[in-house]
Amino acid sequence: MGGEKGSAISLSQLSGNSRAQRRTSPLQVSGKHTDNSRSTAQAPKRAAEPKSIQRKTPVKIIPLGGLNEIGKNFTIIECSNDMFIIDCGLAFPDSEMLGVDIVIPDFSYVEQNKDKLRGIVITHGHEDHIGALPYFLKKINTPVYGTRLTVGLIEGKLKEHGLLGSVKLIPTEPRKTIKFGCMAVELITVNHSIPDAVGMAIHTPAGVIIHTGDFKVDYTPIQGSVIDLARFAELGNRGVLALMSDSTNSERPGYTMSERKVGESFEKLFTTAEGKRIIIATFASNIHRVQQIVYNAERTGRKLAVSGRSMVNVIGKGIELGYLKIPDGLLVDINEISNYPPERVCIVTTGSQGEAMSALTRMARGEHRNVTITPNDFIIISANPIPGNEKYVTKVVNDLLKQGADVVYESMYEVHVSGHACQEEQKLMLSLTKPKYFIPVHGEYKHLIKHKATAMSIGIPEENIIIASVGSVIETDGVDMKITGTVASGNVLVDGLGVGDVGAIVLKDRHHMGEDGIIICFATVDRATGEILAGPDVVSRGFVYVRENEELMETSKKLLTEKLQECLDKDMHEWNAIKMEMKNALSDYIYQTTKRSPMILPIMMEIND
Amino acid sequence: MGGEKGSAISLSQLSGNSRAQRRTSPLQVSGKHTDNSRSTAQAPKRAAEPKSIQRKTPVKIIPLGGLNEIGKNFTIIECSNDMFIIDCGLAFPDSEMLGVDIVIPDFSYVEQNKDKLRGIVITHGHEDHIGALPYFLKKINTPVYGTRLTVGLIEGKLKEHGLLGSVKLIPTEPRKTIKFGCMAVELITVNHSIPDAVGMAIHTPAGVIIHTGDFKVDYTPIQGSVIDLARFAELGNRGVLALMSDSTNSERPGYTMSERKVGESFEKLFTTAEGKRIIIATFASNIHRVQQIVYNAERTGRKLAVSGRSMVNVIGKGIELGYLKIPDGLLVDINEISNYPPERVCIVTTGSQGEAMSALTRMARGEHRNVTITPNDFIIISANPIPGNEKYVTKVVNDLLKQGADVVYESMYEVHVSGHACQEEQKLMLSLTKPKYFIPVHGEYKHLIKHKATAMSIGIPEENIIIASVGSVIETDGVDMKITGTVASGNVLVDGLGVGDVGAIVLKDRHHMGEDGIIICFATVDRATGEILAGPDVVSRGFVYVRENEELMETSKKLLTEKLQECLDKDMHEWNAIKMEMKNALSDYIYQTTKRSPMILPIMMEIND
Repeated sequence: MGGEKGSAISLSQLSGNSRAQRRTSPLQVSGKHTDNSRSTAQAPKRAAEPKSIQRKTPVKIIPLGGLNEIGKNFTIIECSNDMFIIDCGLAFPDSEMLGVDIVIPDFSYVEQNKDKLRGIVITHGHEDHIGALPYFLKKINTPVYGTRLTVGLIEGKLKEHGLLGSVKLIPTEPRKTIKFGCMAVELITVNHSIPDAVGMAIHTPAGVIIHTGDFKVDYTPIQGSVIDLARFAELGNRGVLALMSDSTNSERPGYTMSERKVGESFEKLFTTAEGKRIIIATFASNIHRVQQIVYNAERTGRKLAVSGRSMVNVIGKGIELGYLKIPDGLLVDINEISNYPPERVCIVTTGSQGEAMSALTRMARGEHRNVTITPNDFIIISANPIPGNEKYVTKVVNDLLKQGADVVYESMYEVHVSGHACQEEQKLMLSLTKPKYFIPVHGEYKHLIKHKATAMSIGIPEENIIIASVGSVIETDGVDMKITGTVASGNVLVDGLGVGDVGAIVLKDRHHMGEDGIIICFATVDRATGEILAGPDVVSRGFVYVRENEELMETSKKLLTEKLQECLDKDMHEWNAIKMEMKNALSDYIYQTTKRSPMILPIMMEIND
Repeated sequence: MGGEKGSAISLSQLSGNSRAQRRTSPLQVSGKHTDNSRSTAQAPKRAAEPKSIQRKTPVKIIPLGGLNEIGKNFTIIECSNDMFIIDCGLAFPDSEMLGVDIVIPDFSYVEQNKDKLRGIVITHGHEDHIGALPYFLKKINTPVYGTRLTVGLIEGKLKEHGLLGSVKLIPTEPRKTIKFGCMAVELITVNHSIPDAVGMAIHTPAGVIIHTGDFKVDYTPIQGSVIDLARFAELGNRGVLALMSDSTNSERPGYTMSERKVGESFEKLFTTAEGKRIIIATFASNIHRVQQIVYNAERTGRKLAVSGRSMVNVIGKGIELGYLKIPDGLLVDINEISNYPPERVCIVTTGSQGEAMSALTRMARGEHRNVTITPNDFIIISANPIPGNEKYVTKVVNDLLKQGADVVYESMYEVHVSGHACQEEQKLMLSLTKPKYFIPVHGEYKHLIKHKATAMSIGIPEENIIIASVGSVIETDGVDMKITGTVASGNVLVDGLGVGDVGAIVLKDRHHMGEDGIIICFATVDRATGEILAGPDVVSRGFVYVRENEELMETSKKLLTEKLQECLDKDMHEWNAIKMEMKNALSDYIYQTTKRSPMILPIMMEIND
């Protein structure tokens, strides 16, 4: 096959320190190992190795997110004095992270090495791959590369954060190659639930490393090309040192269905829904899904209206960049749907995960400005609930049903397909690329382990499979590959404008108060005379309904007064000790009486002298 | 078929006011309507009806739980001066009910009518059917009926609450009949995921009402009988006024597999696990599942150890009552497992839902006293995650895998089957009982609606299907059946010893503090002179890490001092008004600076005169 324009790149053109490197092919670097400090140090050991083994300039792969978790994808590739980053995503907080808006990676390792950083390459425009960019770029300004739609979506994000003019955002395309110092990244088309997704071949002095990004195999995509299996195969034939592949669906046997399957379901459902208004909720970024809704609206003579901020944004961007084709006159403003009979309207909306403020949830609650649900509505939730969201989606479904609407949800009618490869597709990728080493990425630990089992089932030796963690330093010299250390890593919590100021203690206190409430006890004392000038008194929040528990509060006050007087009579001088005495006394009494443990916060005031 | 002993009961023997009732069959009451007040009042309307319609003494069905929710099953059946209750269950709090331990029904309608109450009949021993009993019985002491195992499990519960001697707990059995004033309840064997489960035929003056309880059809149960389809059919042939049937699985087509299927999987997995220790987590109450584990442990020469308080309790009760057969010498204490080689040990444990304090979770965290997980462990989680628990189960699976163990979970190997009927079984029940009216029960709204669709698909007219809510009064006179009103109903939250003292305001405050934390600002003032004697000062919890935000705190103090002085200078006298001024000032500043909205609680102290 042709199209070598982006791949036939000579690494000597790229490399900052290529003096000693020799190549056997333009793509496969097999030059001698040139890190002198290391070859000296390891000389004795290496002398024992057979002559054919030629160790090369070592390359480090350092994931700072995306392993043992879903989301927050962020991987560093480092070689000599060069470093670049694959994806810069966020994760959504889990239920333990109370009040937290989003979670981003701990970037400190990159900050400490920012002189080496040559740029960031993004695989596709989902939040778990681009969402941390504004936070990263505020700290370190570096060029960002991605395909056109990806760059378009990043633009919107940078604009919101006031970063638009100041960041170099470089659109590129599959089969094109990006230089990052001594390394080069060649983008390769993959299929996914957003257009313009890519994987990549990373040409390094130590060999070729393939990163699939999020991928699936869709032989009949709605728009764009089929995953570039030929290129993966070609690289495989020339020799791939390591494969990093998407593990999200590694528990699922078989193949992921084509996006076109959903179109077939839509066709049937649009017929079933004849005479009714149609409302479809899906992920805003799934432009292919929206395109299929557009086809069906057009085919059945319905106008299309859009609700939900992110849906409006992405559809706008999709049209602007040519990824979404909407016939003239099909789109109408959501404010104008009342001008059309319901059976001539189709609404596409956000809220497929039951998110509290989303358009569909507002419709379900009867709080949507333009859409009132009636028995004449036919609603399709074209998505599966992400683990943890089941209850929210069920609530929305129940609320919509209670208003008499028809609701099609979950796997009832194949109204959703995944964007990730199942086991057979994972095997296809492994078989085509024939990697020496395999690093399953993107997934919880259980997914990585399953992906490992799949790789072993097609012949990858167990010792060549690396299960890494966030912060692991995976090092390769083209001969070996192993975890050689760790760097600082972890979750940085973003709450409002605060980045990283909510830590373990703050979360612990939020949990405590959220579960059991707080009792504040306070008094004012004249330290000179040891006289209690005011209080002690108590105030509670989130504990019990106070009016019905007056006795509890009165007894608490009495108890605190006695305890405080006792401390003062004993001439205790340490405020903290007095507070601790009061806290313990109250805490015991409250637990004995109610079997609850609210946070107890004593406040002692001294009069100003 | 025989066995009429429990069913051939004459209602004149049961009814307190049977003087005017005539019967055409012992089971189907067709006597004249005898409520004089009502027949007088409705005389004009009824004169217009055809002569064949004979309205009977009205019966009310009042669900106080179990509709539009999973759990908290509680249904009142009321007729003339008699009333009884079917099941008295709890629900587990949803994620909004912070700090709440369990949820029980609002019993106030029963309290207001307690003179009518003749007893409670329990269908089976699951928490969502018996868990509210202690709270109910503390308020109203009434006899409780159930099959032997059910009564055994209730005994344990009452003991914990110190109620054992004071409550009349009456064991009964299928095909036996319990009199509740003018009504009689005949228990009918069903299959479920706990032994000794029953449904019932309620013989009322208005006709026969069937309540399935939780059920499935298992033609090859591990122990006990197959669901008594013959009796349901017989009742159907004689005429059933209404069917109340389990809707839990109404979204699932087909049939639920037999419990024996799990046994087949266990057989294979015990072979796979040869040479390793086996640990199986399942629901404690699934005694049939435990029995199959016992078989396989015995078959493969392993000792059986038990971990987890509820597992120990239920297994003890199961053995004591003869529902669980364990060969002598098979059971060993969990403290003694180290005396046996791992490959000769099988541990059965709680924690299949990833519950925080359960035995399996403690094993996964390395905190279990007797069990340390190693790569030589083969762990089977024999349960599906209940919606909302997916993330907890995933965490446990990941933690176990990280310690090198093999873990079989979810639907990987058919290691779990549901205890509830799927659509085809629901159709079977509808077809056998041929009810005039159908009331889907036990399920979220979406489940009830699906069950309704299933009933319509086999010919029940839509107008004869009643979708009710918690608190609905469903009334029937043997001719019509409809919702005629509502009674007080709802969720009563239990937190520690407090029953019902955590309401909307307390939960709102818990949410607020749990999400955003609290800032307490306080000052002491001499009211007479208008002088600030101490403060203002601020203390925060769950807001930000204070040491890194000293400036924020200092500025807050300054702002509050200015605001308080301003109020005092203006001679403001209303404490609440001053507090509001301070709260608003601080709230604005904090939001502008951090885009967060912690709870702000001003405390003003006056010195004691």
